[in-house]
Formats: sequence, structure tokens, C-alpha cells
Amino acid sequence: MLYKLLNKIIPLDFESMELARIRLDRLTKPLGSLGRLEDMVVRLAGINSSVAPRADKKAIVVMCADNGVVEEGVSSCPKSVTAAVTCNFTRGITAVNVFSRLTNAKVVITDIGVDADITYTGILNRKIRKGTWNIAKGPAMTREEAIRGILTGIDIVRELKDEGINLLGTGEMGIGNTSTSSAVTAVLTDTPVDRLVGVGAGLSKEAYINKIEVIKKAIKINQPDSKDPVDVLAKIGGFDIAGLTGCFLGAAIHRIPILIDGFISAAAALAAVRISPAARDCMFTSHGSAEPGSEAVMKALDMEPVLNLNMRVGEGTGAALGFQLVDAALAAYTQMGTFDDARIEQYTPQE
Amino acid sequence: MLYKLLNKIIPLDFESMELARIRLDRLTKPLGSLGRLEDMVVRLAGINSSVAPRADKKAIVVMCADNGVVEEGVSSCPKSVTAAVTCNFTRGITAVNVFSRLTNAKVVITDIGVDADITYTGILNRKIRKGTWNIAKGPAMTREEAIRGILTGIDIVRELKDEGINLLGTGEMGIGNTSTSSAVTAVLTDTPVDRLVGVGAGLSKEAYINKIEVIKKAIKINQPDSKDPVDVLAKIGGFDIAGLTGCFLGAAIHRIPILIDGFISAAAALAAVRISPAARDCMFTSHGSAEPGSEAVMKALDMEPVLNLNMRVGEGTGAALGFQLVDAALAAYTQMGTFDDARIEQYTPQE
Repeated sequence: MLYKLLNKIIPLDFESMELARIRLDRLTKPLGSLGRLEDMVVRLAGINSSVAPRADKKAIVVMCADNGVVEEGVSSCPKSVTAAVTCNFTRGITAVNVFSRLTNAKVVITDIGVDADITYTGILNRKIRKGTWNIAKGPAMTREEAIRGILTGIDIVRELKDEGINLLGTGEMGIGNTSTSSAVTAVLTDTPVDRLVGVGAGLSKEAYINKIEVIKKAIKINQPDSKDPVDVLAKIGGFDIAGLTGCFLGAAIHRIPILIDGFISAAAALAAVRISPAARDCMFTSHGSAEPGSEAVMKALDMEPVLNLNMRVGEGTGAALGFQLVDAALAAYTQMGTFDDARIEQYTPQE
Repeated sequence: MLYKLLNKIIPLDFESMELARIRLDRLTKPLGSLGRLEDMVVRLAGINSSVAPRADKKAIVVMCADNGVVEEGVSSCPKSVTAAVTCNFTRGITAVNVFSRLTNAKVVITDIGVDADITYTGILNRKIRKGTWNIAKGPAMTREEAIRGILTGIDIVRELKDEGINLLGTGEMGIGNTSTSSAVTAVLTDTPVDRLVGVGAGLSKEAYINKIEVIKKAIKINQPDSKDPVDVLAKIGGFDIAGLTGCFLGAAIHRIPILIDGFISAAAALAAVRISPAARDCMFTSHGSAEPGSEAVMKALDMEPVLNLNMRVGEGTGAALGFQLVDAALAAYTQMGTFDDARIEQYTPQE
């Protein structure tokens, strides 16, 4: 099923990209001087197969799930915060709600594994199970559950595409998920755990050292196969990360540009690229998270964040801010004058 | 006159800053996790002397001027482009116009020294002279002209303050001004010219080497006193840089937050800080320009850009994009719920 879907991923439309580049070069500015905003436009054209790409209907998919590893004391917050914040998203007063409103983005709150019975309207119920098992003692989930998580993400993207959404962002909420993301990143990038782990929502020195030890133990006990990303997600990941991996694969299958939020989303993006390298073509960066692992994942993805805000909220806040830059890129592309309009000699390099 | 104005610069209001910090800590997010957006809010509160700072009336001051050094072949564009683009700003189709519209910012086009008779409505005539002299042969301007340029910038900020503007950005247009900015930066930061010079709007290898030689020559011939920023501006700067230096000083005098655009604006910001160190308190970064000198100036200012877009358009494009982040910071500050509202235990570090 998953592999049948992945076969649908085809390369970007190079003709539309070339035409977009030609149009960008006619705008009244030094050639290429809008830098990475120009790269955005060109890739959006390639994804949309259109020289007039659109990104006016935006959504952030926020995957919410609990992590069994929290019982090892890896987080400063009690597990119950996951459910509380998940419900709080429906009230429109969290950071991701506020930032999403800046560009009229919809926030799609998804319960993919919160350890509580959530019956709020406005929360998509795709619960696989009430939280993963403790990775310090065994696998987080079965391989079947990991695949189900990925398929859930793909399916949500398909639904959003059917609704007319043309720009996606990712986000998450799950106490303990910087631990699982650090574990996944350590294995997928072959980086020592010590260099990836941060303080998450806030940790004392002692708790921080414990967090590193717990992650090392999880990797040692589970022995995930770094060549098999689904095995890595199942053994030391989480339902949120599996779901987000599915979102990135779904974006590639259904040809929607998707912005990577912070560290947890980036770890999922890396898992997606390891499952299907072509998935990278539809991905865009947003901010570089303050979590130290963020840089390692970006490097492995060969990407650089466009925003440098030292944030570590999660929720999809960075992706929501990144939407503003996509708007800016398309505004320049569609509203700037050309050299013909302006009757100015083109700014070209001297020969 | 200038020094009398500079005496009006007083420190930020620490009480408002402290109250803003307390409010930020009550919002439903891990402490400090909005990173540099929180720093923005705190400083805005200090500048406004209010725990409810506002930044809803924005303007970008675009200083336009010609540079005599262009006759040395330092630019890929003919001098006439300065006047053409300056007039083009009034048509609403340049990059800075487009980006300013994203946050309803006003664009204040100022002719402070364009080498043409410009009579367009919508362009502020503050012309000091029709372009500077060639810095490769002697000083760009007299010391009196440099001070007049600075006072012009201060005066424009005062007028905008009177109009109700509460957030400023800087921008410029002037063929040859990456050369003058590189010269100013080299002297103020004591950095070798080779490490600062970029291709500007686009240069061949040969022209690039010539640009470096011309700047070195300008510094050697004029022997600007690095301890006297006005001397540096007069001898190897430009009317645009002097005017922008005035904008930064004016922002400090009249207590308006001001965003630094790219390399040219940053060189002016550094000159302003060297004239009056307290001016730094009202400055905010936007993007890191693709011009190599940009990094050296940021380092000298001890600042880091929030946007990483590899742009090199100038005009104030980076500052205009930065406005979106100020809006985001204040939206979070004013619209997010508090822990009391949410009935969630505060996310605090474990002891």
C-alpha cells in the first residue's frame, strides 16, 4: 500500500521552472538578487506545473501524540500537558494559532496518539494508540503501527488537497518528542547523541544528562536499522514523527509544497527523504530551531533555514512564519514590474 | 546642532521592559521559547515606554543618491539607473513597494543626492548635491555636507514621528553604493577591503578586481580618521549613507524602533553607533545580505540577522520583510493565552 503510493512521486516540472526563472529575470532587480525567494518561486512553479503557482490556501498539520519514554524523566513537563495543549489549540490562543492567522492559514489539529480521550470538536481523531511504549525498554510501536502512522499523514494531505489547500506546513505537540527526534536523528545521521540533545521545554543539568543517557539506552536496546527508516520510526520514534513523515511523503505524492517546522518536523522530513529521496523536492525550510539537533538534520537534508529566530516552541510556529515569506516571494513574482515596463536597461554583469 | 540633538538620546525604559518580560513568561509556551521574537517585544516596550508597544504604522525611508566613484567602473550599471529606479519607486512596482504592501508600510522615497533633476510627485526633495565627488580622487563631500546629510535623516524621522509612524525601516538606491559602503566598513571595522567587497548588482571577475583596487585607493588617498565617523562618511561615504546614519540617530532621538536593511544600511547603522553608542538600542536586524561586507558589519554591531534569504536587491526589501516578524512578535504578545486562561501547569525547568 505505502510503496504503491510512493510510486506516484514524479519529478518536478522543469519546463514550468524554466519559464518561472525567465520571468524572474525580467523583473526590475539585479539578476538573482531576490536570492532564496527566487528559488522558492521556481520550485513552486515546478510543483504546481504552472508558471503561475499559487499558495493562497494554507494549512498547518499539527500532529499530537504522547511518548512512553516520558516515564524516564526526559521532560520538564508532565505527560498530561500533551492533552491539555492539544485541546487548547482549538481555542485559537496558542502560538501556532496566532501565527497562522497572519497568513490566514488553517490549523489542522490531529490526535494521532494522545494518551487521553479527546472529544473536542475541531480535533481530527486519527489516534493509533494512547501513546507509544517506552523506547528505553523496547520499541515505541510495531512496524505495522509505524506504517499506519505514515499512511495517516499521507491521507490527511490527500484530504487537504481535495479541499483546495495548496501550501502545507507541519507542526507537533507531544511531551517527550525532542527525545524521540534526537534518537531518530542520531541513527539516521550517524551523529553522537550528546551533540543532538537540547533542553526541550526546559531541563536542569541533571535531567539533561539523564535525557542523553535514556536516548543512548533506547538506541542500544532497540538496535534500529539505520538503512530502514520505517524500522527507525517504529523502534525509537513516535506517532507524531511517523504521521509527519507521512505528511512529507503525502506532499510529494499529491504535489503540494510543504514547509518544515523545527527539530521534530525536520527529523520526520529526513525520515521521509530516506524513504523516498524525491520527496525533498516539495519541501521548504522555515526556521532553524534552538534545539541543537536541528542543525544536524538540516545538514543531512542539505538545507538551510530561512528564519533565524532561536525559537523552540514547536506546534508549527516556524512553518507558520515561513508562510509569510512564501507570500512575499509570490508577491514579488506577480506584482513587480519588468524592465520593459520600467524602460530601464537590464542590470547585467559587465563582460 | 547635531551634538545638541544627540544629547536627547536617553536609555530604554527598563521598567516597561521588565513588565513585558513578565507578561511574556505568562504566555502558554516554554519560557523564552519564542526566542528573538521575545527580545523584539521587550525592546519595543523599552523604546515605547509602554508594556503595550505598538508598531502598526510603518515606513521605510529609501535614501537615493549618486556616487562620483561610478566613473571608475565599479558598477555593472550606468549611473542613470539611480534616477530611473528612484522615479520607478513612485509607480508601486519595485521590490520594496511590493514587500511594503505586505504590512501596509509607507515607502518614503528621498532624493538626497541623485544626479538628475527629479520632479516626480511622491519623491521627497532633500537633495544636497547632484551626486558625490569621486572618492578615488578625493573626498566624497565636505564635512559640512556630511553633517547636513545626517541632519536630513534625523529631520525626516522627526516628520514621520509627527505623522504617527511608530516603526521604521531603512533602504537605499544608488549605483556605486556597495563600493562606498565597503570603504566605510573597511575603515570603521579595520577589515581588509578584499574581505568585504562583493559583486553588487553583478560584476565580471575583472571589474570585481578593479572595484577592490578603487576602494583601496579611495582609502589611501583620503586617509579618513577611523575614530571620527563623520570624517569617514565625508571622505569615502555617500549622501545616502550619511542620510541613513541620520535616520538611525533620529530613531534613537525620537524613540522609534528601526529595522536595518542590507549592507549599505548596516554600514550606516555602524556609523550611527560609532557617533552615539546608545543609538543601537532602537535598532533591529532584518536580513543578512549576500554582500560579503554585511557579515563584518553585523559582527561589529554585535547583531545577527533574523532572515537568511541571500538577497542583494537593496531598496529596503529586507527591512520590509522584517516588518512581518515584528507583526508576528506583537501578535504573539497580544493574542496568546496565558497559563491562567489555559489552566495548564507552567512549563518550568525541573529542579
